[in-house]
Amino acid sequence: MLEHAKALVEPTAREVVERLLDRTGVQINGPNPWDIEVHDDDLYARVLAHGSLGLGEAYMEGWWDAEALDVCLFRLMRAKLDLHVLGLDDAIAFARAHLENLQKRSRAFEVGERHYNVGNDLYERMLGKRLVYSCAYFADTDDLDEAQEAKLDRVCRKLGLEPGMRLLDVGCGWGETLKFAAERYGVEGVGVTVSSEQARFARALCDGLPIDIRLQDYRELNEGFDRIVSVGMFEHVGSKNYRRFMKTVRRCLVADGRFLLRTIGSNETTRGMDPWFDRYIFPNASLPSMVQIAEAVEGTFIVEDWENTGPDYDRTVMAWLERFEASWPELSRATAQGGGADDASRQAVEHSGARPKPTAKFDETFRRMWRYYLCASAALFRARRAQLWSIVMSTGEVGL
Amino acid sequence: MLEHAKALVEPTAREVVERLLDRTGVQINGPNPWDIEVHDDDLYARVLAHGSLGLGEAYMEGWWDAEALDVCLFRLMRAKLDLHVLGLDDAIAFARAHLENLQKRSRAFEVGERHYNVGNDLYERMLGKRLVYSCAYFADTDDLDEAQEAKLDRVCRKLGLEPGMRLLDVGCGWGETLKFAAERYGVEGVGVTVSSEQARFARALCDGLPIDIRLQDYRELNEGFDRIVSVGMFEHVGSKNYRRFMKTVRRCLVADGRFLLRTIGSNETTRGMDPWFDRYIFPNASLPSMVQIAEAVEGTFIVEDWENTGPDYDRTVMAWLERFEASWPELSRATAQGGGADDASRQAVEHSGARPKPTAKFDETFRRMWRYYLCASAALFRARRAQLWSIVMSTGEVGL
Repeated sequence: MLEHAKALVEPTAREVVERLLDRTGVQINGPNPWDIEVHDDDLYARVLAHGSLGLGEAYMEGWWDAEALDVCLFRLMRAKLDLHVLGLDDAIAFARAHLENLQKRSRAFEVGERHYNVGNDLYERMLGKRLVYSCAYFADTDDLDEAQEAKLDRVCRKLGLEPGMRLLDVGCGWGETLKFAAERYGVEGVGVTVSSEQARFARALCDGLPIDIRLQDYRELNEGFDRIVSVGMFEHVGSKNYRRFMKTVRRCLVADGRFLLRTIGSNETTRGMDPWFDRYIFPNASLPSMVQIAEAVEGTFIVEDWENTGPDYDRTVMAWLERFEASWPELSRATAQGGGADDASRQAVEHSGARPKPTAKFDETFRRMWRYYLCASAALFRARRAQLWSIVMSTGEVGL
Repeated sequence: MLEHAKALVEPTAREVVERLLDRTGVQINGPNPWDIEVHDDDLYARVLAHGSLGLGEAYMEGWWDAEALDVCLFRLMRAKLDLHVLGLDDAIAFARAHLENLQKRSRAFEVGERHYNVGNDLYERMLGKRLVYSCAYFADTDDLDEAQEAKLDRVCRKLGLEPGMRLLDVGCGWGETLKFAAERYGVEGVGVTVSSEQARFARALCDGLPIDIRLQDYRELNEGFDRIVSVGMFEHVGSKNYRRFMKTVRRCLVADGRFLLRTIGSNETTRGMDPWFDRYIFPNASLPSMVQIAEAVEGTFIVEDWENTGPDYDRTVMAWLERFEASWPELSRATAQGGGADDASRQAVEHSGARPKPTAKFDETFRRMWRYYLCASAALFRARRAQLWSIVMSTGEVGL
């Protein structure tokens, strides 16, 4: 009788989750491709206790599925459910971001080792013809390779590149931007990256071109450039370092120079990152808000143009996902070079306690982790919760 | 002997001014067109005591001249002399801006009466074919009228206007934007202004078109529109009201709507306005910074595009200056309708103490005041101290 009364007033974890899902159109074990198919009933309590971290880890471990995972996550993000269901992990991540400088120099190479060294064979299959790990430009094409080329050309035109100019690429990735700029626009360049794998690849890619690739923290830069570009690297800088980043770039830019910053942006000013992303995908990353960038820029640069092509990132990531899924059989058979994927799996294992230890480098846990990462990213842009900004800046110094 | 020693250690006001001018290349009574020709030696002390207010008032009263006044002021502003020589007046203006809400509703109509009612005959001569009192777009032409038409078209295209849409123009001026949008893009519209002169003119201009012109404060608006535009009005809103402005616009915009904000912007976050401009040209105005706009927008709109065409405002104002000077003989003979110019002159007199009271509506003091206003404005943009922003915003609300 007492048990029965308690059941009446105290909803079960599943009931609470279902109530939260009410506004999203996502159902538990429903008929739609975006519905959540639950394989383990402990999912509800785990999600309520650990929020988005719990949801993502549970997916990795196969506790649930969704046929259209990207649409499912889009519906959750559109309703901002990840913000409404805050677990303890979020509070810890928030406190950490506020108490310490997560992106200080001694930790700068961590993301390089953890994420960008995961294995060039994976990125080569996923990213397409060029190793460009950032948003493409789909205005005039539906093809990923063409859209990445259009993006690279757009970057060069926004920079106003001319032959003989010296271009610095802060966070140069695998060197594709510098190569493109050198070949098509006749510039010479310097690229810095914190990933040894990227540096090695970039040096080979740019062989024979007047391009110098350095394994270096951006804060060590102190020389003059006509143009500076940074694509998809500012997400790793950290809000405590934004102003220093701008001052470093300013120090390296000639008076009539131009700086193009391309970064993912957040609608809200926060210092943290989604805890699942922080743990499994981008350690120590955080998305800047417009306010944070404007504050960092004030007194250092004049913004000449600020473009938002966020919806293109949804399309980019969905193209990556398609390529990733298609090449999975090959990838899972392949012997990964270096310890990259192994690192990623080990990372997942460290936090999973009693969960089964993956046996292969690109194992099923990695596959689900990576799929979740791509679907959640696409969903974030589709829900307009994140933006993709191209910000052209000048020094504002005027001759007489 | 003591007098002599004092002269050695204590520089005269002229010497202090000359030292300040050192970095600017502007000389006292020098040979260049941008040099300052001094007619009254009290100028130096006045400038040191009252900063930019003193310099402007002294110009109005004929204490000094410069053949190329725009270049002279450009050189002073490029060196930020107006910020280095802060007089008491600046401190008072600063304190006022911080202590009271200068743009509260009860004062909203002040700028309408003071500046925009100064006389349509003046604006008709100065602004060109269309009464558009904001920055033109010179990318494809050198002609002011063509550049204003290009601007209006650009505004419509940024808004994505389609036939049958309902467009709201917040601060509609003389109604030219609404007229253009209705005629070329087939929209219907509502315009609000705080100037009775503008409202009267706009109603006549838009006669026969589906356009409703209202003499109304923007805060009273509460109805739905597909598109909202505000051109050259945000400068009068005041930093304390930015967030309320955004929320008001959001309230009036449909979920898939678009809002274009065109405003002059400042490189620095301040609440005040140059005291000369505040007293003689735009009472209670203030230029927003990128930080202030980003703060006001956060959580309300997503910025889709932020364009800076500041250098075009230099060209626009110089075109206005040319037309103003050319039509001066005609203007000074004309009998101004209404009390507009009279108000402006009276304002100058109120603060000039013993200075001669102007005898005509468009008298010599008014001429010099207006010339100084235009040259200082052009200089501000030429020195890249102010920007001209076109900010396209959406609600960020996404359908499923």
